[in-house]
Amino acid sequence: MEQTKTAKQYGTRAAALLQRIRELSLITDEPGIINRVYGTPAFVQAGSLVLSWMEEAGLEAHIDPVGNIRGRWDCGNPAAKTLLIGSHYDTVVDAGAFDGPLGILLGLDLLELVTGLQQQLPFHIELLAFCDEEGVRFHTTYLGSKAVAGLFETELLDKRDEQGIALRQAIQAIGGDPGGLAQASVAGKELLGYIEAHIEQGPVLYERAIPVAVVTGIAGQKRILLSFTGEAGHAGTVPMPMRRDALCCAAACILAIEDFARQQAGLVATVGKLDIPHAASNVIPGKVDCTLDLRSTDEEELAAAWQSLQKVLNDICRQRAVLFSYNMVQSSAPVSCDPRLIRLLSRAIGDAGHQVVSLSSGAGHDVVPLSAICPVAMLFVRCYKGISHHPLEDVEEDDIAATIQVMEGFLKQMVFNYDQ
Amino acid sequence: MEQTKTAKQYGTRAAALLQRIRELSLITDEPGIINRVYGTPAFVQAGSLVLSWMEEAGLEAHIDPVGNIRGRWDCGNPAAKTLLIGSHYDTVVDAGAFDGPLGILLGLDLLELVTGLQQQLPFHIELLAFCDEEGVRFHTTYLGSKAVAGLFETELLDKRDEQGIALRQAIQAIGGDPGGLAQASVAGKELLGYIEAHIEQGPVLYERAIPVAVVTGIAGQKRILLSFTGEAGHAGTVPMPMRRDALCCAAACILAIEDFARQQAGLVATVGKLDIPHAASNVIPGKVDCTLDLRSTDEEELAAAWQSLQKVLNDICRQRAVLFSYNMVQSSAPVSCDPRLIRLLSRAIGDAGHQVVSLSSGAGHDVVPLSAICPVAMLFVRCYKGISHHPLEDVEEDDIAATIQVMEGFLKQMVFNYDQ
Repeated sequence: MEQTKTAKQYGTRAAALLQRIRELSLITDEPGIINRVYGTPAFVQAGSLVLSWMEEAGLEAHIDPVGNIRGRWDCGNPAAKTLLIGSHYDTVVDAGAFDGPLGILLGLDLLELVTGLQQQLPFHIELLAFCDEEGVRFHTTYLGSKAVAGLFETELLDKRDEQGIALRQAIQAIGGDPGGLAQASVAGKELLGYIEAHIEQGPVLYERAIPVAVVTGIAGQKRILLSFTGEAGHAGTVPMPMRRDALCCAAACILAIEDFARQQAGLVATVGKLDIPHAASNVIPGKVDCTLDLRSTDEEELAAAWQSLQKVLNDICRQRAVLFSYNMVQSSAPVSCDPRLIRLLSRAIGDAGHQVVSLSSGAGHDVVPLSAICPVAMLFVRCYKGISHHPLEDVEEDDIAATIQVMEGFLKQMVFNYDQ
Repeated sequence: MEQTKTAKQYGTRAAALLQRIRELSLITDEPGIINRVYGTPAFVQAGSLVLSWMEEAGLEAHIDPVGNIRGRWDCGNPAAKTLLIGSHYDTVVDAGAFDGPLGILLGLDLLELVTGLQQQLPFHIELLAFCDEEGVRFHTTYLGSKAVAGLFETELLDKRDEQGIALRQAIQAIGGDPGGLAQASVAGKELLGYIEAHIEQGPVLYERAIPVAVVTGIAGQKRILLSFTGEAGHAGTVPMPMRRDALCCAAACILAIEDFARQQAGLVATVGKLDIPHAASNVIPGKVDCTLDLRSTDEEELAAAWQSLQKVLNDICRQRAVLFSYNMVQSSAPVSCDPRLIRLLSRAIGDAGHQVVSLSSGAGHDVVPLSAICPVAMLFVRCYKGISHHPLEDVEEDDIAATIQVMEGFLKQMVFNYDQ
């Protein structure tokens, strides 16, 4: 009877959480789809809503200088350490509703429970809604969590979006303070760790019919801009053998990249954007710029893959008399989650009656910069067919309820096992 | 001595013409490059300048309902036929200075000669500066010459540019009259023919060191929009074998198209534009739209090529579980130039002391729609390395002088051989 009542309570909280996910999903810069990249009007509106929810939950809430929404619950003991919980509120273009918001709202749900408790906890909790994890606008990820980890490189402020607006200006435009980012940092403070729940964004849990799993680590990632410079010309008058078509060359390189990645089990490679400057249907493309995203959980394999690919691309371009150049935009090493936090999360999963499954993450997450300043850990929540970054992205209410229970169990484990 | 004086006179006229080419090339929507597509502020400004030149030359000049600039020289005999001379004043993006303006200004030069003549001619001459030959903005060519030929399909008015602006609105915005396009037509009037001088846009005259040649016909052309629909997904979490990457599929198709065209001597094929809707560097492309431009001087070969290519593309897409669809935007049959006009132009070239060379044109030109209402013919003028649609596009002053002489010789041939 008690069991049933508790399950019902988790279900009620999951339904309320889903309602907030829906509310956030309606805040978009492009009606009909979810589009909320860093610094846009929809982004600002979503941040305000998250801030108001934190305030309603009784947290000391504010927006930090880079645009993270932060809510603090103070345990009353100035000497106590802090547990960080969070995820991000920016999205890709044409996104799903769960990637990011789910982790923020699971943290908020847990803090609503904490603020309603009779008893105090032996540590503070800070809820972090990070402002730019996806990196769509400035082609650089983790802007929010980098600031929190004290890792925000000042030169990032000069990066420009496709409209030529510098990140510095974008921060000012949302009321932030590009000169005061150091104030966002918690590096050096006494931290218990950072924990994040996130949709899996892959098909494993869906296919194995498991609601939630613990994450062992995050794949390393390289983001590289590739440029191919051939020669423009009239589409009707330059004979095929005399062409130096930059798009045909890029196409050959895209296929070679795909072929290479297919042959390496742990590697994924994606060309996600492609631009032909001054394109016209009757002009032979003279230049192509595209992005390459390379990931592997094995640091050496990742480095070796990029070395090999450079040779492959150079060979193709040489054969076609096309100039090849690249710019390494981002390179991050694989990150391991903290064994102790993994153990406590696994125990909470087992206590909730689920099989304990460990996964590695092919996607980057805000745990990557935070791993530099504290132990980190993640939960992956099953999502429909593993689809993410897509309107079909979906999470069952029951799986949210299961994760609420696991988060609550994890908090209890943290309290029981707390040794200041 | 007389010969030298005449050569000097052609040189002076060529220098003046070049000066006007330079003046027009400075009118652009994007400083630093030449960009003057249909209906933009630079386009309107260029049209006004051409209009003022026509007026200064003593022509009855006006802007017609679609935006063609038209200057008429009346021979005084209401029963006389009309010779049309022209080319276009719109450009591609990042264009050269000569493609279009050269033909307009060669016609203007000839009319300046005519208006200064003591004797009358037995026919009228109308100079036509066409408004949209390149078709960059609305993906449809010959808007100006179609109106003149009475071939402007009303449904074209609903076509929209990439900003969603309908052609109907664009015509209104430049002060034109989308409802009155029939007034632009000269179809049904007594026409002697249409003649146009244009840069070759290919390397033959440059390599053979010949200033000017006569054109025998225009290649047929198909413009097709290709769409590839796969499935978007997260770049880090979807294993390579489970992907339905629309860009990898498009890349395979682009290479297959290139390979196919390389094996057919008379065929050229170009993918000039490629768009990934909602692209992001960390999202597997779910959809790719691109353009295909196919040309051949042989109508049957062109039709057979597109049949074969459809099969090739369908096979590639089926193997990759990607949906393929296409939209035929334009299909034009090859056009033959008029044998009598070719004969008169060839005689003028020979009389000017040059070797008489015949070329076919891989590029489309305004003669295509005009061939439906009157005999047509073209001159090709040598251009630097055959480069066109590019800032390096260039024509020597001596070659312009040679073409001025040939145009003048052609006019004399027309008068001598006139049989009303």
